[in-house]
Amino acid sequence: MESSEAVRIFAALSDPLRLRILEAVRERGQACGKELSAELGVSVALLSHHAKILEDAGLLVRRKEGQFSRFSLNLPLLEEVKRTAPLA
Amino acid sequence: MESSEAVRIFAALSDPLRLRILEAVRERGQACGKELSAELGVSVALLSHHAKILEDAGLLVRRKEGQFSRFSLNLPLLEEVKRTAPLA
Repeated sequence: MESSEAVRIFAALSDPLRLRILEAVRERGQACGKELSAELGVSVALLSHHAKILEDAGLLVRRKEGQFSRFSLNLPLLEEVKRTAPLA
Repeated sequence: MESSEAVRIFAALSDPLRLRILEAVRERGQACGKELSAELGVSVALLSHHAKILEDAGLLVRRKEGQFSRFSLNLPLLEEVKRTAPLA
């Protein structure tokens, strides 16, 4: 993994709400933005803002279904992060 | 690991120079600030600034030896990060 990619991933992980989003998606396997906003007690707009940062870092995968988006974790990337210095 | 601790660790990791510092310390086992600043081509002041952030996050351990500091990695904490959601 390139250093710049690692930096972007760690920056995406350095926010408590974003960690909670990832945890909620992991527990559900997949989830739409509305479900996540309800579960985490935040507005859809705030949820979308942070989900976009996670998506841009590659950690969340968004699948469009009509007017909704379903999010799932990019598990291979999360595995790769663990094998990347300084965590390796 | 508390979410706030995870956030601080990921924030500390989200900088290219800080990743290079950790990598250089890992390769050497331990290193003083002057050695690291020479190896990484940055001033001692800049090195110290970033080393302090890594130290505050618990990732680097500083051992004072007279007027110098020796840094080593907090390997148990790095292992713990890998076992923490969302990486677990």
